[in-house]
Formats: sequence, structure tokens, C-alpha cells
Amino acid sequence: MVRGRISRLSVRDVRFPTSLERHGSDAMHTDPDYSAAYVILETDAEDGLKGYGLTFTLGKGTEVVVCAVNALAHHVLNKDLRDIVGDFRGFYRQLTSDGQLRWIGPEKGVVHLATAAVLNAVWDLWAKQEGKPLWKLLVDMDPRTLLSCIDFRYITDVLTEEEAYEILQKGQVGKKEREGQMLMQGYPAYTTSCAWLGYSDDKLRQLCTEALKDGWTRFKVKVGADLQDDIRRCRLIRNMIGPENMLMMDANQRWDVPEAVEWMAKLAEFKPLWIEEPTSPDDILGHATIAKCHNRVIFKQLLQAKALQFLQIDSCRLGSVNENLSVLLMAKKFEIPVCPHAGGVGLCELVQHLILFDFISVSASLKNRMCEYVDHLHEHFRYPVVIKKASYMPPQDAGYSTEMKEESVKKHQYPDGEVWKKLLAA
Amino acid sequence: MVRGRISRLSVRDVRFPTSLERHGSDAMHTDPDYSAAYVILETDAEDGLKGYGLTFTLGKGTEVVVCAVNALAHHVLNKDLRDIVGDFRGFYRQLTSDGQLRWIGPEKGVVHLATAAVLNAVWDLWAKQEGKPLWKLLVDMDPRTLLSCIDFRYITDVLTEEEAYEILQKGQVGKKEREGQMLMQGYPAYTTSCAWLGYSDDKLRQLCTEALKDGWTRFKVKVGADLQDDIRRCRLIRNMIGPENMLMMDANQRWDVPEAVEWMAKLAEFKPLWIEEPTSPDDILGHATIAKCHNRVIFKQLLQAKALQFLQIDSCRLGSVNENLSVLLMAKKFEIPVCPHAGGVGLCELVQHLILFDFISVSASLKNRMCEYVDHLHEHFRYPVVIKKASYMPPQDAGYSTEMKEESVKKHQYPDGEVWKKLLAA
Repeated sequence: MVRGRISRLSVRDVRFPTSLERHGSDAMHTDPDYSAAYVILETDAEDGLKGYGLTFTLGKGTEVVVCAVNALAHHVLNKDLRDIVGDFRGFYRQLTSDGQLRWIGPEKGVVHLATAAVLNAVWDLWAKQEGKPLWKLLVDMDPRTLLSCIDFRYITDVLTEEEAYEILQKGQVGKKEREGQMLMQGYPAYTTSCAWLGYSDDKLRQLCTEALKDGWTRFKVKVGADLQDDIRRCRLIRNMIGPENMLMMDANQRWDVPEAVEWMAKLAEFKPLWIEEPTSPDDILGHATIAKCHNRVIFKQLLQAKALQFLQIDSCRLGSVNENLSVLLMAKKFEIPVCPHAGGVGLCELVQHLILFDFISVSASLKNRMCEYVDHLHEHFRYPVVIKKASYMPPQDAGYSTEMKEESVKKHQYPDGEVWKKLLAA
Repeated sequence: MVRGRISRLSVRDVRFPTSLERHGSDAMHTDPDYSAAYVILETDAEDGLKGYGLTFTLGKGTEVVVCAVNALAHHVLNKDLRDIVGDFRGFYRQLTSDGQLRWIGPEKGVVHLATAAVLNAVWDLWAKQEGKPLWKLLVDMDPRTLLSCIDFRYITDVLTEEEAYEILQKGQVGKKEREGQMLMQGYPAYTTSCAWLGYSDDKLRQLCTEALKDGWTRFKVKVGADLQDDIRRCRLIRNMIGPENMLMMDANQRWDVPEAVEWMAKLAEFKPLWIEEPTSPDDILGHATIAKCHNRVIFKQLLQAKALQFLQIDSCRLGSVNENLSVLLMAKKFEIPVCPHAGGVGLCELVQHLILFDFISVSASLKNRMCEYVDHLHEHFRYPVVIKKASYMPPQDAGYSTEMKEESVKKHQYPDGEVWKKLLAA
């Protein structure tokens, strides 16, 4: 089914001026402009299908990721898509282990974000050619083929390919029922839209009221900049949502380890299910509860060190579907619930595919599991997420839901799009 | 003494075609073109002094680091140098914690390399204005001022500012004598020039003979691509240098953990002092012996986990002098010997300053300590290292030895320099 040679790779710098209203603000990122390096792959096949991929950024620096995508382009151009997905592990390693480029990573920061954007586009193209939404492509894929997409380098001490195969084989049992369950009920979500750090108490109150009315039962609040402020805001939210609903907190790497311990003790009375990113994402030994990480090697150690109670994958920081698959399988081995990071630009659209696959084919459990949801910028996507009763409904369109509306892209291109021309002139 | 406002920041992409002769080749980097993102700072002071800074790269991707330097430029331009060094911790944090840019790091990969290049230039400028080589600027600096250059965020659980102060105070004892000792004898070095992975046995034999004649007693060999090859090469070198001289090995991140254990067992008969980078630089729990790392948080944990027997700093991967100071102080607390990584473009020129400071003001010991030396590309520097009897002789010129010859830069600029024009045409 797969066909065509990659004839063109283009990449665009797309930025939304979210900092104007302090959407997305937290203790470390006070004025983010939610942005994306947006990759488009074209082939010489006559089906007219294109692959769209992105990685999420916060405004400044998107041009650096765009530059890195261009540095990777020669590994992609003129490749036959059959050869890419036929040896996806090899292709993944070619991108991440280029003898010159890996020095400026490896598998972290700018080059890894760029790798994610490129590979997300490859996966979108593959799923489109197969006529399936990405989650369904993964669910239907034979386990051996699926494993051939994963680079096991640096993780075989906790997960070998054989172990991973056994996990997937076990996951076959009850798969059909779980797929049916997802199509009926969707995957449980929690909302972060109500309580960005820069929002006033009034705004917070209003958004919380609306969210409760819409059926949300799980809420995340940003903390970490000022303790008294945090106490006031957490009390306000806990009072509004009541003792039965779930509350999560996110400090966005603000604290040192002793500071985190002290601060978390003070916020414990509001009964958070977790406190996210209490300290540096590089600090495996200093971690508690939950962390977003930059690659499978860091996740591996967090699991080995039993430093995690929940695990957050990210569709655009890790090396695309390929690396996320390895993390989902490791999490299963350690029986740690995966609660994906989402929000930003397109993260909800993408990660829903991964978590649906996880439930149907790997974890087979919803216990303590939920996927983040933020109600921003979905209007710019051609196949936006569908939320019903605080759950992600499985996408039905072919692809990875990565495609943006051309009109939105044009308007928000930095610095030449209409929106930025106006803002920069002002 | 410090003066002037930063009036200009320029950055250049400088590449040396070292891959043509397989200099610098190892198990993961088979064809590096040793390169640098090279930053020049100018001020409005009338002394005509400029600050030069670089970070080392391997060819492709240098343009991405250049792009990141430009993304950081607005934090530097129009700043008064007095304000920068007067609150160097604050300035460091401004660069590393920019609310938008930190997303594409933080403190790792491309943006951290760019930060190093910029800050290396600031340190060069500062030392030049003070009329001292950088090591001497550090050695003479009052401990409180020195500590005010360090960002202690994320490391206070193992090293507080007060503990660091005590270490520096203790280091005052015998400082003059140690400075004198360095000026007389220099700092012990080891050589990596003989045994790059891509060299033939004949070339290896010839280079080893010459090195022994020049008084070298400590040698490093690259391993990790092919076990039988490694055994042959290690036997050859061990036979040539005899049982008394020191042999180190470097696998450059090639192995998984089980693979590393097995491979290292096979190479043990050649009695290496250490095996460097056996696996992913992100794998704290998987590490043995020695690792080059990307920031102070990773080093902190390697020390906490007692996963290191030696510690390698890098003048261009960590956040310049500022972050290296914090690592030197942590290493002292854990009594782990520091053996800097060098080679590449300018790494020897820069890191000698740091290790001289370490001996004179912090560690006060040479036991199991030595600094890597590679005999490449020094001719392009205005103040190249001076090696005598296999030791680094302390630089006497003001600055951080970072300045390259303008003629070399011009010739090797990528892609427009004369050297590259010719190569790219061919």
C-alpha cells in the first residue's frame, strides 16, 4: 500500500500570539507564544497525499528548530516511503545518529524536536496512505512490524525486543472489546484550561464554573511562582470543584529539590493527585511523581529508579511515534500509568492517537489514567480533537491529525504572516 | 576596571575539513569535520578589545548553533559589561531561562552550546579588560564574587552556596605555592592524537612512536565499533607503550548497558585506567567510570549515584565558565578527580584555564588527574596552547585563549570560505 518517493520537504515557522492574553503562562514560561515548526512532505505518487508534522515551541527559537529541520532534510529527500517504513528503526537511527549532527544533541533539545516534526510528518503520510487514523494503523499493525519501528539502543537493560513482543502479544487479548469501548466512550481527559498562572482569580472562577458545567471532573493548576498565591488559588479551585473531583498541580521545573519538598508539603492539604515537574527535567534522582522527559533513556531511568508514579509522554518532544512506542512499552513493564502531556499547538490532536493505542494494545487499563486537554488553537487544525463528556473521542479521519488549515498557517507565519505584520508594526 | 556596552555581536560558521583524513573519528562519529560557532563581541569602550567565544561542533549542524546564537543576541546587545559581570548569575539565568527559548532546551543541546559560545566570549572580554589570562582572573577573584557567577538552581540538594564558599576558603591555603608549581611544571596531559578509530595500524604505530619520543606517558584509544578490531589495536598500543604507561579507552556512547559490560570485560586485559562514555550520556544509572555531560544537573546525579570514578568537564558543552565552576566544586565535595575533555577546535585552549584554576584554588591535588590533549588545529589560534614534557604550560596572554586568527576564520568559513568553495566545487 505504501508508495512514492519523498520529492519535497518544506518547513514553516507558525506562531500564535498567545502571550497577549497570558494563555499558557506558568512559573517558568511567563509569556509563551504557542508556536510550531511545521513540516510538509510531498511525494511523487499520484495520490496527492501529503504528510504533515509539527513540533511544539513557545515562540522565540522556532526559527532554530526550523533550521534544524532543514539540516535533517537530506536524510529524507528522495527516499522511497517503502524503504523508510520498511526499515523504520534504521531510518530513525539515521536521523538521530548522523555522525556530525548528533554532536549538537544527541536525541535532545533542538535536533530532537526537529526529528519529531519530520517523523510526525512521515507517520501522518503513512497513515493517510493506509486510509486509517494513526491510532488504528498502530492497533492493526502486526507486533513484529510495530517493534521494527523502535530503536532499542540504550534501553535493552530494561526492555529487550523479545519482552516487548510478549507485552504486545498479551495485549491482543480483549483488543476488539477495548477498541469498541473507546469508540463508544472515548478516552478520559483532564483540563488545564482553567488555571494558567497568569490568569486572575475572577477569570479562574469563571472558567472553572464553565468547565464544571461542561462535565469536567479533573483539573490541573499551575503553581510554583509564589507560595501564598498558590495556596490562595489552590484553595479557590478545590472549593469550587469539591472534594470528589481530581486536582493535579504543575510546577514546571521551578524548584530545587529541598524547595520542592517544602513547597509540596504546604500544598498537600489541597489533595493533589500529583505534582508535576517539581524540578529540573534532567534530575532523575531528584524526581517525585511525574515528569515530561526528552528521550527514552531518561524515562528508562525514572522507571528504574522508581522515581515516577505517573508517566507523561509528549508527542512532539520525544522522537515521534517511534520513541513513544518504546516508552509506552517500558511503562507497561513497570506498570506505571501513562497520562500524556498535551495542550500547546496540536499536542492534543497528536497524543490522543498514542494513548488510544496504549489502552487498546498495551496497558488495557484506565485506572489512574487520563490525557491532558487544553482548549486552545484547535480551530486551526483541519481535523481537530472531539471532546465529549470530558473524553477524547477517537479520530476517524486518516492520518495523525497533524494537518493545519492552510489559511491559519499563512496568517500566522512568522514574521511575514498578516497577524505578525500587524503586531510587529505596532 | 570593567567597561563598555556591548555594541555588536557577530557569529561565524567555521569548519575544518578534518573528515578528509579521518582525524577525530570514533565509534559514533565516523566522519567529523571539526567546526565551531565562533562569536565576537565588541563594545563601545575605546580600548579596542573584543571578546571571542566558541563552541565546538562536528560540521553539519553548526549553522543551527549559529541560528541559536542569533536567537540569544538580544539578551546581550546593549548590555553594559559591568552589569553583566556584576550580576553574572542573573545574566546566566537570563540566557538559560528565557521564557520562550528554554522550551527548546532547557540547558541542553543546541541552545546550551550557543549559550556556551556567547558566555565564553564574555569571559574572554572580561579577562582581557582585566589584563589577565582567564585562569589567573579566576584564581585572584574573591570567593564571593566567584560564587556570584554560579547558578545554584537544581543543585542545592548536594551543594549550597555556603558549602561552596567553605571549599573555596580552604583552597586559599597553599594557593601561591600551587600557582608557582603550575608556572614551573604545567598541568599533566594525556594524548588522544595517536589512536582515532579510522587510523590504520601503521599510522597508529608511527604516531605512538613519535609520542613516546616526545615524552608522552598517557594515551587514549577509541574503541567500540568492532570487538576484534579493538582487541588488536589495544594490544598493539599496550605493547608499544609498555605496562607502566597509562592507557584510557573511549567508546563514545556506542553501547547498551549489557553490551558495555561484556565488551569492557574483553578489553580489561589491556588494563585501561578508565572506559569513557560506555553508553548514552543521558544514562546516569547505566554509567560506569567517566562521562562527558551536558549540564550541572546530570553531573550532580552522577556524583550522587556514585556512578563516576573520574569526571570530565567540557569548556564548550556546559554553560561556559559559570557552569563549569559549579561542577568543579561539586567534584571537590565528592572528591572525584576531574580530567577535562579536550581536542576538537579550541577545547584544549579553553579548558586548560579551568583545570589550572581547579588545581590552584579547588582540588589542590594532581592525584589521578590529567587533561586531555589532541594535536590538531592549534595553528588557527592566536594564543595556542603550549605543551612541554607532556604538560600544559599556563597561558600568559590576557583572555580565554579563544581568539582565532582572522585569516584562518576567513578561509574556513562555511560555505563561502576559500577552503570550502574549493571542496564544494569538487
